[in-house]
Amino acid sequence: MQAHVPDPLSQTFAALADPTRRAMLARLSKGQASVSDLAQPFLKDMSLPAATKHLKVLERAGLVTKTREAQWRPCTLNGAPLKDAAAWMEQYREFWEQSLDRLGEYLETLTARSARTATRKAKGKGRRHARKR
Amino acid sequence: MQAHVPDPLSQTFAALADPTRRAMLARLSKGQASVSDLAQPFLKDMSLPAATKHLKVLERAGLVTKTREAQWRPCTLNGAPLKDAAAWMEQYREFWEQSLDRLGEYLETLTARSARTATRKAKGKGRRHARKR
Repeated sequence: MQAHVPDPLSQTFAALADPTRRAMLARLSKGQASVSDLAQPFLKDMSLPAATKHLKVLERAGLVTKTREAQWRPCTLNGAPLKDAAAWMEQYREFWEQSLDRLGEYLETLTARSARTATRKAKGKGRRHARKR
Repeated sequence: MQAHVPDPLSQTFAALADPTRRAMLARLSKGQASVSDLAQPFLKDMSLPAATKHLKVLERAGLVTKTREAQWRPCTLNGAPLKDAAAWMEQYREFWEQSLDRLGEYLETLTARSARTATRKAKGKGRRHARKR
């Protein structure tokens, strides 16, 4: 929260923390695109400068590079910064798998509980039937 | 860049986009900790309210939860939001592996080139030696 040049990992995560920027990366994962092609789907929600600003954030984070070609300068997805981000994430894999395990255990408890309740109800019914007879 | 409630994935990535917050998660990956224990390592660089603000960002993103215990309310790491972030990242695996492949190819080219240069130099030397004799 201080004014400072962010470290590369923070810059990568900050660049990913926006749905427009993630959508731009998704578009680029299908192939190169010009700035106007990339901006176009967002122009009903934002101005061209706003869309270009998003693209600049991706460029500064090294996730998008502008290739030099003869007639145009298409944008290309560069996955390299994602590698460090994924490696960071990987350290915590046990924690999200654990949370799924816990969910699994919880669901099992629920199933077991409802099975017990069903058995008890069935027995109760049986008993009531027996009394009635 | 508009004022809006961020989607959960953006909130996760934004929470990770800070070295203090990542360090707090690293600390919590070793076990539960109190707010003051979590803040303590950062108090030479920032105020307690600033450190608490970082912790609040992690809580809002669902990455840290405060457990209710008798005497204290320790903070616990909750890995669940990281699962979606990792799944998003996974879609781009080919792009960071590709960039490594390209680096690999480049290194191979360099090695091959320096091997050729070495052979040429050795041959040259041999020729020079032959001429001397």
